Amino acid sequence: MSTPLRLGIAGLGTVGVGVVKMVRHQAALLQNRCGREIAISAVSARTRDKDRGVNISSYAWEDDPVALATRDDVDVFVELMGGSDGPAKAATEAALAAGKDVVTANKAMLAVHGQLLAGLAEENGRALRYEAAVAGGIPVIKALGEGLAGNEITRVMGVMNGSCNYILTRMESAGLTYEEVFDEANALGYLEADPELDVGGIDAAHKLAILSALAFGTRVDFDGVEIEGIGCVKIEDIRHAADMGYRIKLLGVAQMTGRGLEQRMAPCLVPAHSPLGQLEGGTNMVVIEGSDVGQIVLRGAGAGEGPTASAVMGDICDIARGLRLPVFGQPAATLATAPRASAAVPAPYYLRMALHDKPGALAKIATVLGDAGISIHRMRQYDHADDQAPVLIVTHKTTRGALDQALAAMDATGVVTESPVALRIESV
Amino acid sequence: MSTPLRLGIAGLGTVGVGVVKMVRHQAALLQNRCGREIAISAVSARTRDKDRGVNISSYAWEDDPVALATRDDVDVFVELMGGSDGPAKAATEAALAAGKDVVTANKAMLAVHGQLLAGLAEENGRALRYEAAVAGGIPVIKALGEGLAGNEITRVMGVMNGSCNYILTRMESAGLTYEEVFDEANALGYLEADPELDVGGIDAAHKLAILSALAFGTRVDFDGVEIEGIGCVKIEDIRHAADMGYRIKLLGVAQMTGRGLEQRMAPCLVPAHSPLGQLEGGTNMVVIEGSDVGQIVLRGAGAGEGPTASAVMGDICDIARGLRLPVFGQPAATLATAPRASAAVPAPYYLRMALHDKPGALAKIATVLGDAGISIHRMRQYDHADDQAPVLIVTHKTTRGALDQALAAMDATGVVTESPVALRIESV
Repeated sequence: MSTPLRLGIAGLGTVGVGVVKMVRHQAALLQNRCGREIAISAVSARTRDKDRGVNISSYAWEDDPVALATRDDVDVFVELMGGSDGPAKAATEAALAAGKDVVTANKAMLAVHGQLLAGLAEENGRALRYEAAVAGGIPVIKALGEGLAGNEITRVMGVMNGSCNYILTRMESAGLTYEEVFDEANALGYLEADPELDVGGIDAAHKLAILSALAFGTRVDFDGVEIEGIGCVKIEDIRHAADMGYRIKLLGVAQMTGRGLEQRMAPCLVPAHSPLGQLEGGTNMVVIEGSDVGQIVLRGAGAGEGPTASAVMGDICDIARGLRLPVFGQPAATLATAPRASAAVPAPYYLRMALHDKPGALAKIATVLGDAGISIHRMRQYDHADDQAPVLIVTHKTTRGALDQALAAMDATGVVTESPVALRIESV
Repeated sequence: MSTPLRLGIAGLGTVGVGVVKMVRHQAALLQNRCGREIAISAVSARTRDKDRGVNISSYAWEDDPVALATRDDVDVFVELMGGSDGPAKAATEAALAAGKDVVTANKAMLAVHGQLLAGLAEENGRALRYEAAVAGGIPVIKALGEGLAGNEITRVMGVMNGSCNYILTRMESAGLTYEEVFDEANALGYLEADPELDVGGIDAAHKLAILSALAFGTRVDFDGVEIEGIGCVKIEDIRHAADMGYRIKLLGVAQMTGRGLEQRMAPCLVPAHSPLGQLEGGTNMVVIEGSDVGQIVLRGAGAGEGPTASAVMGDICDIARGLRLPVFGQPAATLATAPRASAAVPAPYYLRMALHDKPGALAKIATVLGDAGISIHRMRQYDHADDQAPVLIVTHKTTRGALDQALAAMDATGVVTESPVALRIESV
C-alpha cells in the first residue's frame, strides 16, 4: 500500500480546484490517514490557460477527458465536469472499462445512467463513488450505504438544493416576492446556468433518485420522481404557513410503500420547529429513517468549493484504503425494479385559491371537497379589495388521487379564478 | 466472500439482544448488502437461563467470554458487556490475539485502553470497530474517520449523554428541580447503575475522548478531559439562560489549539436557536467542524436497543465487506501525544452567585472581576426575601485561568454566600 494513489481530474471548476487544493494542503494528513500518498498525475478542463488560483503546471494536461481517464499513470478518474451525458459519461465508461476506479460529483449522470454505470463498475471490479453528488459535504452516501447498512430503510427525506432553500427563507425573512428573490439569487450567481434545474426541482430530484436506490435497493429511477418546483410558492403561502406553525421547504421524500416506491420532490409544509423547518439559507439536510436506528438527521453545507471537495476526498481516501463496495450498496443485478407508487401515502394538504366573490362560491368548494371524501381541518377567507376572495384550506389526511380529483372539480365549478395551489403537509 | 461471517456475541443485555434480533430479522437484507451471510455461532452472558424475548438455544453457549472470543467458529467477537477492564478487556485482547475482528460498544474500555487495543488490532491485522460506543445510532465514527478523512478537523462538539439531556430539558419543561428530575429519571431506569457515570459527565467524557483521538490523530487521553457534571445546574440557571436566549446542555468540546488539545465536558450555555440548543430529551447530537467541509451536524438516538444495535451491525457489515482501517484512522504508532491545553480558548461565562445583602457587596465583586481583567457584559441582581441577594453576571470573553483567579478572589471577599457557579457560553 505504499505506492501513491494517482488521480486524473477532469473538470477544474469550483470543485475541481477545491480537490487540487486539498490534495496539496492536506498532503501529510492524507498520507497518514490513507497509508499512501495521494498524487495528481493529470488534469483536463475546457480551457487550459485560465487563472484558477492554483498552479496546475506540474500536472500533465489532456484536452480530452476520455484520454485522461485511460492514462496509464491514473489509478482514479475524478469526474467533476457534470452533465448526464456527453464527455462525463464517455470518460466514466472509458475509465471503468480501463480498470480505473471512479469518483464523481455528477448527480445527473448517476440519476440517469446509474444502473448502467454500476453494472460496468462491477464487471470491472472497480469502485464508483459519488458522495459529492448528494448534499455536498454531508457524508450521507456513506451513512446510508455503510453506517446504516443493517437497517431496512423506511423513508428518506431531504432539503438538497441550497439555492431553493435560500430563496424560500429569504422570501420569508425579507418579505420579498419569489420573482424578486429569484432575480437576486441569479445575480449573485447562486443559480445554475439553467435556473430551472434548481427552482424546477430537477437538481434535487437527481439527488433523491440516487438516495432512493441506495436506501431501498432499487434501480435508480429518476423518471419516477414526481417533481414540482418552487415557482408556485407565493409570499402569502409562506406567511399563512408560518401562522399555522409551518415553514415551506423544497422537500424530497422517498418512501417504500405497499404499492411501490414513492418519490416526490415538491414544496411542502413542515413543522416550523422540526430540524427541517429550521433549516436556513443554503444549508442542506437529509433525514433517514430506519427499522432499527429510528431517525437520523444530517446537516451541512450542500455546495461550495470546500464542502464538495471534502466529499470527493472522502471517496478518494476510501479507495486509497482499499474499500470496494457495490455502487448502490448491493450487486447491481439484484437491484429491484420497484413499481412507481404515485402519492401512495396520505397526508394533509394546504390549499390556496382565489374565488370569484359571489354568493355560494365557498359552499361550492366545500361541497367539492366533501364529494371527494376530503374533510376540512381549517378554512379561512381573507379580506380582499377586488372581486377575488383569497381562501386558504387545510385538509385532513387524504390521498393525492382524491385531492387531484377535487382540484379538477373545483376548476369545473367556475368559482375559482385560477387553478388552486396544493402543498403537501409532510409529517417529519 | 460466500462463506458466512460468524459472530460470537458476549453480553446479552439490551444491545446484545438487539443485535441477535437484527441478525435474524434482516438476514436477507444483510446477505444482499454484505455479499455473505451473517451468522451467530455462540453467545455468552452472565446468566444463561433468562427470558430475553429471543431464542438463543440454537447458538453455542460459553460461560467464559474469553473462551467465546477465541472459538474456532467465531470470525468476529462482538463485545457488548461493558466495563473498562475485567472480562471485556480480557476477551477483546484474546480475540485480537487469536486473529478475530472485534466490534464493541464499550466506550469506557476504548477511552481507557484505546491505544493498547489499537496497537494490538494492528499487530494482528484485525479490525476493532466501535461505532456503537459513541452517540448510539448516529454513524459519527464513520463520518469522522472516513467521510471527512480529507479534512483537518478543527473542533468536535457533542451532546452525548441522553440521560443528562433528558434531565436538563425536563427541568425546563416541567419546572422541576434537578433533584426531582434526577429521582424521576432514576425511577424510570434512565440512569446507569452508578448514576454518577451519567450526571457526573463521565460516560459522555469517555465518548469525547474517543472522538478526539479520531478527529485529531492523538492518543486517546480520557484523563485529559476536564469533566464537570450537571449537578450544579439549578432551575434558576435554566430560566436565566432562557431569558438571555440560551439553553444549558452537557456539552463536550474537543479542540486543537496552539497550546495543545483542549477537551472539556461540562454544562454550557448554547444559543437557544442553534441545533444544539434545540435538542430535546434523550436525543444526541455531534457537531464536527473541518477545514474544508465547514460544519456538519449529526443527530439521532443516542441509546436504546434498536439504535445501538444498528451501529453494531454497521460495523459488522463493514467487516463482512472487507473493510480494514486503523482503529483511530491512522496507524496507532503515529498517534500524537498532544499536550493538554486546559481551557485555552477564551469564552464568555455565565456566573451565578448569592451575595450577603450588605452595602458595597456588588462593588466588591465587580472590582474583583475588573482586577482579573474580566469585563462585564451584563449584570442583574434579583429580588430576594432573605439576606442573600441572587446576582447573575455574564462576562465578555475571558480565559478560564483569569476566571478561576477571579472566582477564588470572590470567595476571599467574604461577600459571596457560597462559591459562585460558572458556566461557559459556547459559540456554536
